[in-house]
Amino acid sequence: MQLSYQEILRPEIPREECGIVGVYGHPEAAKMAYLGLYALQHRGQESAGIVASDGEKLRIYKNKGLVSEVFSPRERLDELKGSMAIGHVRYSTTGSNRIANAQPLLVNYRGGSLAIAHNGNLINAAELRSELEGRGAIFQGTADSEIIVHQIAQAASDDFLEGLTTSLYRMRGAWTLLFLREKQMDAVKDPRGIRPLCIGTLDGATVVASESCALDIMGAQHLRELKPGEMIIVGDGGVRHEFPFPPVEERFCVFEYIYYSRPDSVMHGKSVYQIRLALGERLAQEQPAPADLVIPTPDSSNAAAIGYAKAAGLPFHLGLIRSHYIGRTFIEPDQGIRNFGAKLKYSPVASLLEGKSVVVVDDSIVRGTTSVKIVEMLRRAGARQVHLRISAPPWKHPCFYGIDTPTEQELIANQLTHDEMTKHFGCDTLGFLSLEGLMQVVPRTQTFCTACFNGDYPAGKPVHFTKNIMEQTAAAKR
Amino acid sequence: MQLSYQEILRPEIPREECGIVGVYGHPEAAKMAYLGLYALQHRGQESAGIVASDGEKLRIYKNKGLVSEVFSPRERLDELKGSMAIGHVRYSTTGSNRIANAQPLLVNYRGGSLAIAHNGNLINAAELRSELEGRGAIFQGTADSEIIVHQIAQAASDDFLEGLTTSLYRMRGAWTLLFLREKQMDAVKDPRGIRPLCIGTLDGATVVASESCALDIMGAQHLRELKPGEMIIVGDGGVRHEFPFPPVEERFCVFEYIYYSRPDSVMHGKSVYQIRLALGERLAQEQPAPADLVIPTPDSSNAAAIGYAKAAGLPFHLGLIRSHYIGRTFIEPDQGIRNFGAKLKYSPVASLLEGKSVVVVDDSIVRGTTSVKIVEMLRRAGARQVHLRISAPPWKHPCFYGIDTPTEQELIANQLTHDEMTKHFGCDTLGFLSLEGLMQVVPRTQTFCTACFNGDYPAGKPVHFTKNIMEQTAAAKR
Amino acid sequence: MQLSYQEILRPEIPREECGIVGVYGHPEAAKMAYLGLYALQHRGQESAGIVASDGEKLRIYKNKGLVSEVFSPRERLDELKGSMAIGHVRYSTTGSNRIANAQPLLVNYRGGSLAIAHNGNLINAAELRSELEGRGAIFQGTADSEIIVHQIAQAASDDFLEGLTTSLYRMRGAWTLLFLREKQMDAVKDPRGIRPLCIGTLDGATVVASESCALDIMGAQHLRELKPGEMIIVGDGGVRHEFPFPPVEERFCVFEYIYYSRPDSVMHGKSVYQIRLALGERLAQEQPAPADLVIPTPDSSNAAAIGYAKAAGLPFHLGLIRSHYIGRTFIEPDQGIRNFGAKLKYSPVASLLEGKSVVVVDDSIVRGTTSVKIVEMLRRAGARQVHLRISAPPWKHPCFYGIDTPTEQELIANQLTHDEMTKHFGCDTLGFLSLEGLMQVVPRTQTFCTACFNGDYPAGKPVHFTKNIMEQTAAAKR
Amino acid sequence: MQLSYQEILRPEIPREECGIVGVYGHPEAAKMAYLGLYALQHRGQESAGIVASDGEKLRIYKNKGLVSEVFSPRERLDELKGSMAIGHVRYSTTGSNRIANAQPLLVNYRGGSLAIAHNGNLINAAELRSELEGRGAIFQGTADSEIIVHQIAQAASDDFLEGLTTSLYRMRGAWTLLFLREKQMDAVKDPRGIRPLCIGTLDGATVVASESCALDIMGAQHLRELKPGEMIIVGDGGVRHEFPFPPVEERFCVFEYIYYSRPDSVMHGKSVYQIRLALGERLAQEQPAPADLVIPTPDSSNAAAIGYAKAAGLPFHLGLIRSHYIGRTFIEPDQGIRNFGAKLKYSPVASLLEGKSVVVVDDSIVRGTTSVKIVEMLRRAGARQVHLRISAPPWKHPCFYGIDTPTEQELIANQLTHDEMTKHFGCDTLGFLSLEGLMQVVPRTQTFCTACFNGDYPAGKPVHFTKNIMEQTAAAKR
Repeated sequence: MQLSYQEILRPEIPREECGIVGVYGHPEAAKMAYLGLYALQHRGQESAGIVASDGEKLRIYKNKGLVSEVFSPRERLDELKGSMAIGHVRYSTTGSNRIANAQPLLVNYRGGSLAIAHNGNLINAAELRSELEGRGAIFQGTADSEIIVHQIAQAASDDFLEGLTTSLYRMRGAWTLLFLREKQMDAVKDPRGIRPLCIGTLDGATVVASESCALDIMGAQHLRELKPGEMIIVGDGGVRHEFPFPPVEERFCVFEYIYYSRPDSVMHGKSVYQIRLALGERLAQEQPAPADLVIPTPDSSNAAAIGYAKAAGLPFHLGLIRSHYIGRTFIEPDQGIRNFGAKLKYSPVASLLEGKSVVVVDDSIVRGTTSVKIVEMLRRAGARQVHLRISAPPWKHPCFYGIDTPTEQELIANQLTHDEMTKHFGCDTLGFLSLEGLMQVVPRTQTFCTACFNGDYPAGKPVHFTKNIMEQTAAAKR
Repeated sequence: MQLSYQEILRPEIPREECGIVGVYGHPEAAKMAYLGLYALQHRGQESAGIVASDGEKLRIYKNKGLVSEVFSPRERLDELKGSMAIGHVRYSTTGSNRIANAQPLLVNYRGGSLAIAHNGNLINAAELRSELEGRGAIFQGTADSEIIVHQIAQAASDDFLEGLTTSLYRMRGAWTLLFLREKQMDAVKDPRGIRPLCIGTLDGATVVASESCALDIMGAQHLRELKPGEMIIVGDGGVRHEFPFPPVEERFCVFEYIYYSRPDSVMHGKSVYQIRLALGERLAQEQPAPADLVIPTPDSSNAAAIGYAKAAGLPFHLGLIRSHYIGRTFIEPDQGIRNFGAKLKYSPVASLLEGKSVVVVDDSIVRGTTSVKIVEMLRRAGARQVHLRISAPPWKHPCFYGIDTPTEQELIANQLTHDEMTKHFGCDTLGFLSLEGLMQVVPRTQTFCTACFNGDYPAGKPVHFTKNIMEQTAAAKR
Repeated sequence: MQLSYQEILRPEIPREECGIVGVYGHPEAAKMAYLGLYALQHRGQESAGIVASDGEKLRIYKNKGLVSEVFSPRERLDELKGSMAIGHVRYSTTGSNRIANAQPLLVNYRGGSLAIAHNGNLINAAELRSELEGRGAIFQGTADSEIIVHQIAQAASDDFLEGLTTSLYRMRGAWTLLFLREKQMDAVKDPRGIRPLCIGTLDGATVVASESCALDIMGAQHLRELKPGEMIIVGDGGVRHEFPFPPVEERFCVFEYIYYSRPDSVMHGKSVYQIRLALGERLAQEQPAPADLVIPTPDSSNAAAIGYAKAAGLPFHLGLIRSHYIGRTFIEPDQGIRNFGAKLKYSPVASLLEGKSVVVVDDSIVRGTTSVKIVEMLRRAGARQVHLRISAPPWKHPCFYGIDTPTEQELIANQLTHDEMTKHFGCDTLGFLSLEGLMQVVPRTQTFCTACFNGDYPAGKPVHFTKNIMEQTAAAKR
Repeated sequence: MQLSYQEILRPEIPREECGIVGVYGHPEAAKMAYLGLYALQHRGQESAGIVASDGEKLRIYKNKGLVSEVFSPRERLDELKGSMAIGHVRYSTTGSNRIANAQPLLVNYRGGSLAIAHNGNLINAAELRSELEGRGAIFQGTADSEIIVHQIAQAASDDFLEGLTTSLYRMRGAWTLLFLREKQMDAVKDPRGIRPLCIGTLDGATVVASESCALDIMGAQHLRELKPGEMIIVGDGGVRHEFPFPPVEERFCVFEYIYYSRPDSVMHGKSVYQIRLALGERLAQEQPAPADLVIPTPDSSNAAAIGYAKAAGLPFHLGLIRSHYIGRTFIEPDQGIRNFGAKLKYSPVASLLEGKSVVVVDDSIVRGTTSVKIVEMLRRAGARQVHLRISAPPWKHPCFYGIDTPTEQELIANQLTHDEMTKHFGCDTLGFLSLEGLMQVVPRTQTFCTACFNGDYPAGKPVHFTKNIMEQTAAAKR
């Protein structure tokens, strides 16, 4: 369903999904961060950036494009000297071109140089911004990270960590943050632990990253996921762990397991691949289908479809071939091609489908545009019946905690009944995993944010009274 | 195993694998050719080009890069006016930069304008070239297509088809050719039918392409594969079929089924996906393994691995995750990363592999470099045993008919015994499909070229007496 | 002498020379600003940018490169909608890559959106910056314009003009500023009027620009130069003029007449070309030479050389041909070419020089590197004698008011005596215009800043106590 | 008048003006050729290319763009190994994109590798091409150089020089050619010596170039201009000079002196600058004007205007300032700007012109478009009278010998009478140099081609019977 995210959705308020990585104490810190960002590329394809410190100076390079594009030629990476580095990849919102929002953000303030990389979203960004502006702050972009550094710069205390902690107290929403100063790297997760961040070690260096796959590619050893509200201070004196916030219930984003993370990542000690497999199995139990075979919408639904097939005792096949050569733009003939966008990405294997009843597994439905096209594509390739199965509950509510989603009016599961959706997609039957089923599959030891399914927002929803000001800024920046 | 082809192999003599497409009688001929080339992108990523005719003039655009890159901005495509077009994609040989060899080739000769697109390889290119030079021809590149147009231009007859036929008589090897002139498109396959070419129809237009997937994306109806030695002449008078060559036994490239074609293509009436599935099943019967699960080397071995798993009664899993963001260059840290190249492409899912005995299916081994890395990668991810299974016989001999391969000295199966290979790859057991087994699986109604497995070259091998001249040319051109 | 500026100088503290333009009330405001920037390109080749307002939103595009490069393709300009626009070109410092410092700067603050374009330099930037940081400001670049908007954002008053005026009171140095808000454009010159800014009218629209040549290319009518300390507020209610600062003596930069402005510009009612002509005439009277002909260092010294030749009664010739094709980089053969850099820019016309005594006129000497090369080049082309004449006094002191110059240690006229310089340059005689002579030529009605010649800094010199912090920032930003 | 050439003219048949350079026996041959091409950049800005030989292999790099752009990054130059090199720059025809026509051309033929660089134009190209096609030749572009190598490749003799000489016998028109083979460089000029080529020496190496300015930049010593019909063979055995053609009267292109060459070049022992100076003096005698001052159309008319001013006893001024920042494209506001194109290139210095009677000197008038704009520009800047003086006779006939010109119908001096032109340009008086006057000024020792003025074509005019075939080719190639 990546097509939906990248090609269709237009956010109502500035919001993004991202990947972050930090390295402290490695002779090639920037290069390790670069490798980590490559492994986290699925979390953001719009821009990439790295700030490195040699103990005295911070140096930055960031630009629009994929990691391998941004840091080519290699001089751009070689110049990022030093044994400390933090990096960031940012998600693409179609048509957006806001280089001013690329991260990390590197600023000078009264305490010296400070770089920040942020994954998450503040729901009280508008209020904080308005307050900061009232105290004389200027904003050059719309990213939350700019709000955060303003908070720190305006903090009462001259002590960085004290100022940081005070600032974080005021930030509502989801925030997993990396900071780099001349001689220190800090990482912190919001008290509910909504977005992921894990820690590892590499030849004595400390490494943190959004997902363990970033540690794997460096050859680092994965130690553990950070705890909700945990703050890690890495400096000359070693690694210090603090918990500066009053404890609240953990609310890890369940969607990281369902769709967002890479299947080879391990989160909170659990394999993402294994969880998706189990989601598929549970889905088969809850939503069986009178079918001849099971196919995924590749590649994000592969594991769930394998699980479904296994539990249902049906053959698993790769009935949709995914193209590896999708460019940034593609020209459609003037007279139009049926299901053009979907066809550029997927091709059905007709010999598998002809005369067959097919279960097609997907991991989520947002606007439903792609589902309509895939069902039609399968039917035209000869499928007798198409049973659409989703390895998650219906997505009815926007995410305000760091995943780019449309409004409720645009979320098809919010607008249509189950029967209306079935008819709209053109499938024979439609089945979602139940929220209860989902909760049976994911680790019992954790508590989750499931706001996108049930509207229960653990960190609140944004208040839009300053929306106009923000939209104006968003429009002005390019 | 695509990594091997693109990153390792250096051909000894100029040779290439390609995809071709032709459209006659469609108001947006060039755009349809562009779509077809996109679907054939797996057959060649180095360069792309299209020649179109509006009945009076031929216009060309070609360049290095992927199809979507070459024809962006869209003006480049809009300017290719007319209802006839032929297109070409060319395979990448690392480090090669020979724009002079990009196709189609468009020339003027005494008969007017002539464009050619070629898939295949002439084994008597050096002799033909030498003869042509002796008669005063000049060569600006090293591609076979330049030899072919010289042959036609120097033919005794003024009649294009007569001259063409006479010329083709002299060409030994594999050649599937498309020609475009002001008002006529011609397609022809060598008498053995080594390389594929199919024909279809689209709203009254005639469409030809290397694979049926190119017809599918246009929405064209796939009619059939061209017969060996068949010539199709498409003009104002409709479509004419001729068989100008004395019949010889068909020898279709069996490797198109094993690896080269896209799994959703249908060749000679057979689904490529289904054949690969059957290859995996047969492989399981011939080469069973005491394993816990079966995984493919994604994506080209996916179907074979599913077949293996089914026949072996073992679970199928996607134990290696393939990256979608491989760029043209990537920077390795100075201190080196273990299995760097393989790691950029594949990541193991450790939770599936830990303590398990794993069958990993691949479709071919060329130099063996990637196999070594994958086996080590799986072991480091925790696999207790690794059983490497190849859904084809050992590749012992170079292909001289259009697939870019190393010399016999570089083909590992030619140099090492089975035991030596097992040890070299570091796997517990190694198993290839037998040639007999392969022949049981592919259509009995066809006869095949299996030269890469048994050295039986149906159209002969090249004689290298003019090799020096050609190498000199290759070096001079960039 | 442009070569010296661009290829040799490295500033010790951040400083720049720039061109600015503003348009209010024109249906194609951004396109007019673009034309104006093209005419001002000689004032800055590093980056160009425009902010436009349609009355509700401000939109920006800026990037590194020449004006014609930055705004190609034209969509970038078409998207800058509205009838108000301000633009900026910035001078190139070799090796610097600070996109964060490109102008205009567009920010959001408590009063809404605000764009600023600045020509000049603050000498108390470090103090102001330190104060602002102390009150919680963050800085993303090192440009003075960021300090200025911070001042406004932190001003006590909510009224923009009141806050602006208060802020400007604190800024010491040279500042010619343009501001754009949703519905208002403001222009202001520092009380000494160090840098130029003129006003004109175009079909009812109000236009301001650094030089009149920017008005000419738009077809606008040039009205007059702004007065020192004058503030222009252009809004719905028309154009308002204010003088918010206590009057001080005017100190217009005399170097604008000597070198910096375009010869077709008119400043303070005087033609730049005519002044240069008169400088040359005066130079001939003060520093005659026993010569056969007079040649300029093209093109900036052309008018002065014509004036010299006329007053001396000697023939004027273009004895050095200037190349029009100097690229951004050029490769020197490994073995080296004598006077390589100068040769890429100038070629001597030997037939004019052979056996002759030549006066070569230049407008200024900074480090002297180019002078050495030109003298040698002329001698090798056959000149019997070379008499170097400079149409300005010796440049002995750095400019702190907006022109990028080296330190006193690097200014050759500060380090060497007249005789030492003569010997160093290798010329037969060397002659500078006297400061008295200069003052005779420039308009008597004006008073000037001549700090570069006599060290009399009307707006003071920078105090360097915070230099370290700033250098650190400069290094960190790229 | 460069604007006319580049922005307006569209040739009827393929034709071009070029610059060539050759180096034999220098350790950095390609880099020296690169410097030489930079100096010859005014002769062609469309594309640049170099072929080098290390004695065994020929290597080529060529592309569209300026010399400094084409050979950046420097690896492109470093890879052109060897002590022999030839290079070529090609003139830009707006909108043309024919990379297939870029030079040098490098081919393989029966004699090995052969590279060619050509300056000139064959008038019997169509006939030769037709004959060659009749004998089986194919053509990939439309450049004459392709015809020439075909001639050589089809020559009866196996001896290169014999074949070359035989081929050259058949070529009518203007051709100054450089050839490079593995171990030999050859240069040859047509028997009439229409286009320039000079020879020099650099540390024992032999250097040839279109103009002496290319030798100067390398630091080479200029020896002399090649004689008409002279052939130079440079190989292991040293430099050999031959005169293989029957002698005919020399007809050197007089336009090289008037406009095309660089003023610092020396041709046939005469300084181009000095000849232009004398042309201006003669023009003043023939066509005096009741004026206050004399200005050039910079920069090509500078020397002629200085000469005019001197002879007329009038002040010389640079009353039009030429922009140094003209980009490849520029956006005009929708409502249009008066004299937009001319304004981008020239700006009048109003203070010089107001109320004055002005002589403006130009070197030629082709279509007259720019003249109209310049006259209007001067009047709007305040000139009381404008006297247009041209330092050449009226251009009435197309050049078929290597300079890109429009048809007779488009040459304004061919279509309008003197009075009509005066009215059309809007000038007060118009004066051309007489052909007799021109002949008085240029060296008496030479005889000239003056076909553009009097239609006397020494090498004949092209016959257009095969024009259709050629146009078709030109259209097809891009």
